Amino acid sequence: MLQYQKFELSFQGKEPEGSWSEIDLRAVFTCQGDQKEVSGFYAGNGRYVIRYLPQKTGMVQWKITGLFQAEGKEECISCEDGIHNGLVKPSGTALMYEDGTSCRPFGTTVYAMMHQPKELVAQTIETILESPFDKVRTCVFPKHYIFNENEPELFAFEKKADGGFDFHRPCFAFWDTFEQMLQILGDHQVQVDLILFHPYDCWGFSRMTKDEYLPYLNYLVARFAAYPNVWWSLANEYDCMNAFQEEDWNRIDHFISEKDVYGHMLSCHHMLKNYDFSKENITHCSIQGDVTAVDTYMKRYRKPVLMDEFGYEGNISCHWGNLSGFELVHRFWICCVLGGYGTHGETFMNDTDTLWWGKGGKLAGKSPERIRFLKEIIKGLPGALEPVYARFVSAEMIEEMRQGLHQEQQTDFTRALLKLPTEEVIRVIDNITSDTRIYTGHCGEEAYLSYYGRHCTAVGELELPETGEYRIEVIDVWEMTRKTILTGVHGKVEFTLPGKEGIAVLAVKQ
Amino acid sequence: MLQYQKFELSFQGKEPEGSWSEIDLRAVFTCQGDQKEVSGFYAGNGRYVIRYLPQKTGMVQWKITGLFQAEGKEECISCEDGIHNGLVKPSGTALMYEDGTSCRPFGTTVYAMMHQPKELVAQTIETILESPFDKVRTCVFPKHYIFNENEPELFAFEKKADGGFDFHRPCFAFWDTFEQMLQILGDHQVQVDLILFHPYDCWGFSRMTKDEYLPYLNYLVARFAAYPNVWWSLANEYDCMNAFQEEDWNRIDHFISEKDVYGHMLSCHHMLKNYDFSKENITHCSIQGDVTAVDTYMKRYRKPVLMDEFGYEGNISCHWGNLSGFELVHRFWICCVLGGYGTHGETFMNDTDTLWWGKGGKLAGKSPERIRFLKEIIKGLPGALEPVYARFVSAEMIEEMRQGLHQEQQTDFTRALLKLPTEEVIRVIDNITSDTRIYTGHCGEEAYLSYYGRHCTAVGELELPETGEYRIEVIDVWEMTRKTILTGVHGKVEFTLPGKEGIAVLAVKQ
Repeated sequence: MLQYQKFELSFQGKEPEGSWSEIDLRAVFTCQGDQKEVSGFYAGNGRYVIRYLPQKTGMVQWKITGLFQAEGKEECISCEDGIHNGLVKPSGTALMYEDGTSCRPFGTTVYAMMHQPKELVAQTIETILESPFDKVRTCVFPKHYIFNENEPELFAFEKKADGGFDFHRPCFAFWDTFEQMLQILGDHQVQVDLILFHPYDCWGFSRMTKDEYLPYLNYLVARFAAYPNVWWSLANEYDCMNAFQEEDWNRIDHFISEKDVYGHMLSCHHMLKNYDFSKENITHCSIQGDVTAVDTYMKRYRKPVLMDEFGYEGNISCHWGNLSGFELVHRFWICCVLGGYGTHGETFMNDTDTLWWGKGGKLAGKSPERIRFLKEIIKGLPGALEPVYARFVSAEMIEEMRQGLHQEQQTDFTRALLKLPTEEVIRVIDNITSDTRIYTGHCGEEAYLSYYGRHCTAVGELELPETGEYRIEVIDVWEMTRKTILTGVHGKVEFTLPGKEGIAVLAVKQ
Repeated sequence: MLQYQKFELSFQGKEPEGSWSEIDLRAVFTCQGDQKEVSGFYAGNGRYVIRYLPQKTGMVQWKITGLFQAEGKEECISCEDGIHNGLVKPSGTALMYEDGTSCRPFGTTVYAMMHQPKELVAQTIETILESPFDKVRTCVFPKHYIFNENEPELFAFEKKADGGFDFHRPCFAFWDTFEQMLQILGDHQVQVDLILFHPYDCWGFSRMTKDEYLPYLNYLVARFAAYPNVWWSLANEYDCMNAFQEEDWNRIDHFISEKDVYGHMLSCHHMLKNYDFSKENITHCSIQGDVTAVDTYMKRYRKPVLMDEFGYEGNISCHWGNLSGFELVHRFWICCVLGGYGTHGETFMNDTDTLWWGKGGKLAGKSPERIRFLKEIIKGLPGALEPVYARFVSAEMIEEMRQGLHQEQQTDFTRALLKLPTEEVIRVIDNITSDTRIYTGHCGEEAYLSYYGRHCTAVGELELPETGEYRIEVIDVWEMTRKTILTGVHGKVEFTLPGKEGIAVLAVKQ
């Protein structure tokens, strides 16, 4: 048994009576005083499986009850291959593997990856492994949407005679194939952000009742929770799923959190209305929207911020699917410099309607290469970035200024601002900070990374600590060049910049 | 006497007693029953001048009273040189010269043009005349600001012994020079949007009292109102002038409107808080801010919308002065396609701190050439553009949907939207419409102009009228190419596009 790798016990028997999704098979695994009680699952052809994800080294003992009874033990040893580092967990607003390795994921999106012909699935996996992306958002259920109109060969469940799905009869071929993907990607340290529900549907998966979705979730967690690279994304655009009410989301959230004894990453992605990321079981913010708000979310929730959707590089007519390569790279930089984690997507039209964002295949855009360049810089930092909050007046300060405080900070600008109603003031501040900001993040006093975005300034300025010696590099995010311009500097430093869009400056303590 | 051109009578006498800005000299000019009563002004060296701007042809009679008494008459004849078309006036949300010629100005900004050495002033005027710009925003008073720290040689008024200015003693050399500029630019049909007050000041001009500014305004109108190319911009960033209260602006507005018997264009430019453009005397909206709001202003005020400040092409560190050439061109296109009129500015650093936006000189940017290209397209249209309003849900519709109306228009999107509080709904709509819009304007059914902005779509669609035959052109706003892709089409038309940023499509009825 290897630490941080799936361990499996199996039994052969008759096929289960009643539900094949909820069977009476449980195991308790004990290691160094830690007990984990997990459910087994039925894998088809009379085969019953119990999986366990060992998180500690040492002797592991187990006891199986229910349809089969057994006991056993085995030593769990450390693998230390640099790839199997355990689950990703939040660490403040950053992410860390269980073994203490920093995790700074760069995601991509292939929603209906597993609902395509197997040659295409294989090509998609190959593309991911060659790409800079080490996290992929993908759905359990197929997607019915523009450019996604093909009927999948296999579904997660078998159909009943009436054409509906029988959520007590998993389609084993589907789950076998799905978990091959989880395994291959996991062996290359690619996280899979598994989308459990989504609204883009013509088969009824978006309108499942409690009695339908609980067997599904039971089977899902019993089968997949032992894959260390799995994240649970309760939904894509949960707020568009009108058949699900708040009590459904609470039930699903609690069910997953209780059944998943390891504590995989768990969040829920929205279209317009954020899921409540302050909930206890939610490990991180999963955001669709404006990347410039990373620091706002970070401040509000004190959890890692994953910008899981902010438009795709492509050329389709939908506004969210025709960003230029530069625009996507620009958004990625803002996200990362503020300490967030971004998710790429690509929507270039082609003859076979194989758009990466939907079906996978090959990447055609100009952004992945630049995201790889960004990734190298981010991974090379001494720690996770935290945002340097914009030093603009806050709404609170505005109120205080109205009461006569902060006179010394009152400029023509703030005096003009004070004449507006408060809601207008907030809007103005929002607009200005998003239009005018130079985005800066820092790793303590070890490193500072500023991104100038679309500002073509020819003069840069950093206020570094007064002690220490820093090396300053100018980075062209599109041309992918890095040039050291100063060494041994500290305090307030001025320097010239190329005066073009897409320039970043990195200061690292020598 | 030529129609639409300054007519002048002068008298020689002793220098005035008391104020030199407010003298007792008036004239009534009568033509075809129209009476205009204007004030004369003192031009120095015992010279007194009365100016008149003839707006009609026919016999003009005058009667002068006050310090001098005289009567006379002269035939006013039409000039018809294609340049002297009279004052610009609002015509609905468009602009028109008095002779009925359409006016579609393309502005630039040289705030402190007339406070520079004369060689530089001459170069600036030459540059304007060679440029695509036919409107310039410029200040009467000098500017004290970054990159604008030089003391001017001449001020509009003479200094008193105590170092303050005597607003009853115009500096004639200043006014002579200033009006030479008005004349030269007018002879080339360049409008001068004259900024009467502004906050960027170290001399006290931004803190003038009523008793100081009224003589100034009296002199100004008496001297300049006969130049047909003059517009009155009460201020630049009036809301930053903390010494001026609302009653001052009302007084100034009324004073100018009453003294200017011709009705020159009149507005007031803000930083954050719009001047009240609904006021009777205000001819147009003079906006600083987001160009995507042109149609909102147009709908709200039903007056022409001049986007007088939306950032400058340049490389200074101020966020408003380091737009790329593309970004400025992009904003210009949005503004113009929606039926607004834009104003350019340029802030490139150089060895002499001669930034175009402040001091003039030469243009260095990449946007003017593209603005010329845009200007040719806009001037070639059969009429002024009006916006095609975005067909997104309005806040009112949201309320109605909450009450169960518009069921047929309720999509996943709107249902998700309805779950948000109303103020959030409005913010979401604002954000989405500005991020996702394809900007479209039309001249009745004669022409449709769509600008795709940063959207790199490879497929375009137009819904043209079902009758008529249209020619469709694809325009690359940066490369300045125009290519006809379809002729003889009508109704719903689909076509391929280059799939890059900065593409526009023009459909013109053949």
